[in-house]
Amino acid sequence: MTEAPAELAALQERMAELTDLGRIHAMLFWDQNTMMPPNGAGARADHSATLEVISHDKLIDPEIGRLLAALEPWAAGEDPDSDAVRLLAAVKHDHEKAARVPTELAAAMSHADALGQQAWQEARAASDFSVFRDALERHIELRHRYVACFEPAEHPYDVLLDDFEPGLTTAELRPLFARLRDALVDLVASAAGNGDEARNNGVFSGPFEVDDQRRALMVVLEEVGYDPDGWRLDPAPHPFAQSLGPTDVRITTRYDLHDFGVAHFSALHEFGHGLYEAGIAPELSRSPLGQPVSLGIHESQSRLWENLVGRSRPFCGWVLPILREALGPGIPQRIDADALYRAVNSVQRSLIRVDADETTYNLHIILRFELELALMEGALSVDDLPAAWNEGMMRLLGVEVPNDANGVLQDVHWGAGLFGYFPTYTLGNLIAAQLWTRLEQDLPEIDQQLATGELAPLRDWLREHIHRHGRKFPPRELLERVTGDTLRPEPFLDYLRAKLTDAGAL
Amino acid sequence: MTEAPAELAALQERMAELTDLGRIHAMLFWDQNTMMPPNGAGARADHSATLEVISHDKLIDPEIGRLLAALEPWAAGEDPDSDAVRLLAAVKHDHEKAARVPTELAAAMSHADALGQQAWQEARAASDFSVFRDALERHIELRHRYVACFEPAEHPYDVLLDDFEPGLTTAELRPLFARLRDALVDLVASAAGNGDEARNNGVFSGPFEVDDQRRALMVVLEEVGYDPDGWRLDPAPHPFAQSLGPTDVRITTRYDLHDFGVAHFSALHEFGHGLYEAGIAPELSRSPLGQPVSLGIHESQSRLWENLVGRSRPFCGWVLPILREALGPGIPQRIDADALYRAVNSVQRSLIRVDADETTYNLHIILRFELELALMEGALSVDDLPAAWNEGMMRLLGVEVPNDANGVLQDVHWGAGLFGYFPTYTLGNLIAAQLWTRLEQDLPEIDQQLATGELAPLRDWLREHIHRHGRKFPPRELLERVTGDTLRPEPFLDYLRAKLTDAGAL
Repeated sequence: MTEAPAELAALQERMAELTDLGRIHAMLFWDQNTMMPPNGAGARADHSATLEVISHDKLIDPEIGRLLAALEPWAAGEDPDSDAVRLLAAVKHDHEKAARVPTELAAAMSHADALGQQAWQEARAASDFSVFRDALERHIELRHRYVACFEPAEHPYDVLLDDFEPGLTTAELRPLFARLRDALVDLVASAAGNGDEARNNGVFSGPFEVDDQRRALMVVLEEVGYDPDGWRLDPAPHPFAQSLGPTDVRITTRYDLHDFGVAHFSALHEFGHGLYEAGIAPELSRSPLGQPVSLGIHESQSRLWENLVGRSRPFCGWVLPILREALGPGIPQRIDADALYRAVNSVQRSLIRVDADETTYNLHIILRFELELALMEGALSVDDLPAAWNEGMMRLLGVEVPNDANGVLQDVHWGAGLFGYFPTYTLGNLIAAQLWTRLEQDLPEIDQQLATGELAPLRDWLREHIHRHGRKFPPRELLERVTGDTLRPEPFLDYLRAKLTDAGAL
Repeated sequence: MTEAPAELAALQERMAELTDLGRIHAMLFWDQNTMMPPNGAGARADHSATLEVISHDKLIDPEIGRLLAALEPWAAGEDPDSDAVRLLAAVKHDHEKAARVPTELAAAMSHADALGQQAWQEARAASDFSVFRDALERHIELRHRYVACFEPAEHPYDVLLDDFEPGLTTAELRPLFARLRDALVDLVASAAGNGDEARNNGVFSGPFEVDDQRRALMVVLEEVGYDPDGWRLDPAPHPFAQSLGPTDVRITTRYDLHDFGVAHFSALHEFGHGLYEAGIAPELSRSPLGQPVSLGIHESQSRLWENLVGRSRPFCGWVLPILREALGPGIPQRIDADALYRAVNSVQRSLIRVDADETTYNLHIILRFELELALMEGALSVDDLPAAWNEGMMRLLGVEVPNDANGVLQDVHWGAGLFGYFPTYTLGNLIAAQLWTRLEQDLPEIDQQLATGELAPLRDWLREHIHRHGRKFPPRELLERVTGDTLRPEPFLDYLRAKLTDAGAL
């Protein structure tokens, strides 16, 4: 290793500042979604916009390009896996991507995102898609202008995907999701026999007071690895996790008085996100490498804790007595570990993505992916979207959509201009299963460990193989380094079939 | 009015951005002191420092000087009381002041403030001043370097004062505080007959659970003007108020299980601060004029609600049944409105500033002011500070100081390098009394209004005369505009003597 040139330190300093600004933005987001009084929204929009402009200006500063160019010859002689060389690659990616988008377009998109969210809210409240259609059309038009800023991609959707899952292409994703779709449609046809049962089959129906639910969550979370000195748990209508630093992790959950399962699984889900952010190597934390590498990998961590751990037979056996003690008699005596395990793994056709079970969930996503592609390709007009939605819900899930509010308007994403985002939810499920396959080889006693709440080995494995690297390796490379495998749906499908069989749903 | 030149809009845009950054900084501060997990402190220090550097760089940008210069001829022809002309004056003040301090010195001061706070914490925990002495010496040395950046002032302390109370001089303050001191020492000698009684004389001794206290506070606060859609109330060990915008006001309070009066009066105090920030004219809010004009004026608003309203006979009569209903039987039956009024106006010699009553409080401040002057003048060495403190406490308050923790180390201010700050607490008391004298002329029914909880006229008066102006008029000018009077202690002393007599303490 040769001595690093002065330009590296200069670049690192700029990146530390930009990372701080990103963390501050996360702080504003967290506050807005947990603490802010409703009337604070106007001023908050100004604050966010100001931070965004400052960050953008700093990221596209031509001096960054100059530093990168000056460092290139040096980097060529360094270990390609060193933090410094990987940092340069990440900065180059971010800088060039940001610099290609004219400030005027970035501002127009940001503005349309805010307006679109508002239009979506009104449309959903009125359950009337027509209130939202103009905003959606504007979003799509702006996405085409955005795509046009970059080198022509094989598919325009590739550019959108890259913002959430760097390097993934439509050409890869389309056949992969098609395979998954066909298999899941078959699975649901066999498994969803009990379509009119309540979610979680009433095991957690309580009712349970929010304070009691929170206390129970904290017992479980502290057992699985929540650190009270470095984490917070707050209620939020749309649960999320946010990290303001590796030792300041904020997770949220939502409470349903008549279904503790909602809080339980959303807390485990957000815990998985939080643990990822908490596990990034401290030496990366004030740099662009100190972030989760992609939404798909991020989601693999949350899904792993929510589903592969939280809905596993051994974990159900371990957690039931803890919950029974914390929640008192609200859990019926007839429920034993096996009943819990079956209940939280039932398959039900349903209308709403965020309420869907592990199996049907991915069909909700695939529908959105297909529709986004069709919209971007121009094969589907905005006006025809509701009908296409309703047709897709029937085709994929066998569900009749009663109205727009519970159909095409159910998610905020399209209102906020987030196209290319939805697929990462399913990627998370696929990747979690691929990681688990590998992890079971390294931790042959994992089932027994889950059964006794001995979760340190699992946490250590995840930190060692995924978390600590942050954004150092692109998602594709990270997955291959850890699993020796490429992204594919079969491990997920194998896992699902085995579990559904074991849980009596197949 | 001539058409405003383009430079004005350019300046306003820069100032809006800077104001946003200031609000974001306030957000970080609020979070740090209410929500942040303890281990978040390290990353938070980075985030704050980054924001500070960016703000400082933007404030000293020579382009601001150019815009100001270009606008001068135009401003000369405008109404000197217009928002635009006053904005230029405020920007000029801030820009020139910031530009005079070399970045290296600003960084050294910021660094010393952080280290000083840490040293102070350790010293206070050990009750050992010697642990803090080096940090304090460094602070004073840096303040001398800071003072030297500016045009020579009549007294070096003037420069420090100006950061908190713009335009106030040592030459004015010294004789004013001397008059106040002499009168208060006499007052305390007559009134503090009951020195061994508990604060609030046991009326609120409960014990009361925090949840019950909070519920009672909310009833009172919503009656006096707290807006649930635009405000928050949270617990904090050192209560403060922070506004992230005129419709996002965060106040805090602290709870003592055995004295509800602590929460009650600190909530009224912070409510006064919050109401000021909420009342600033919306059209000023994204500019340097959209801020409280000085700490003294700010404190006048909190003291007014805490003391002139909250400890008045009519308000005590109004609030007692409300508290009795909210707090249940924890308030003894023997307590009637008169007993409450007497209890919350008793005079007691005490060691700790933040626990002091309305009368003795100012002697705590005057001691700190005298010591700060002596330290800055070199008349007192750092090593002699504890002895001077103890001597002063005996001389002014007749109190024996048992140890450093409850003496010279009790406040965070000197640890954090805040010199020139303490006087503003007493200024707040003096100004509140001067405002009240004027307000009684405009609102002759104020006592009856307080007695019936009809507080809109008072809030409106404060908004009209103080709040809405923000920082438009310098504090001296604002006071004279509202009261026709200059800063002086007599109205406060008159008010205090009258109340102590009425409450049976004199």
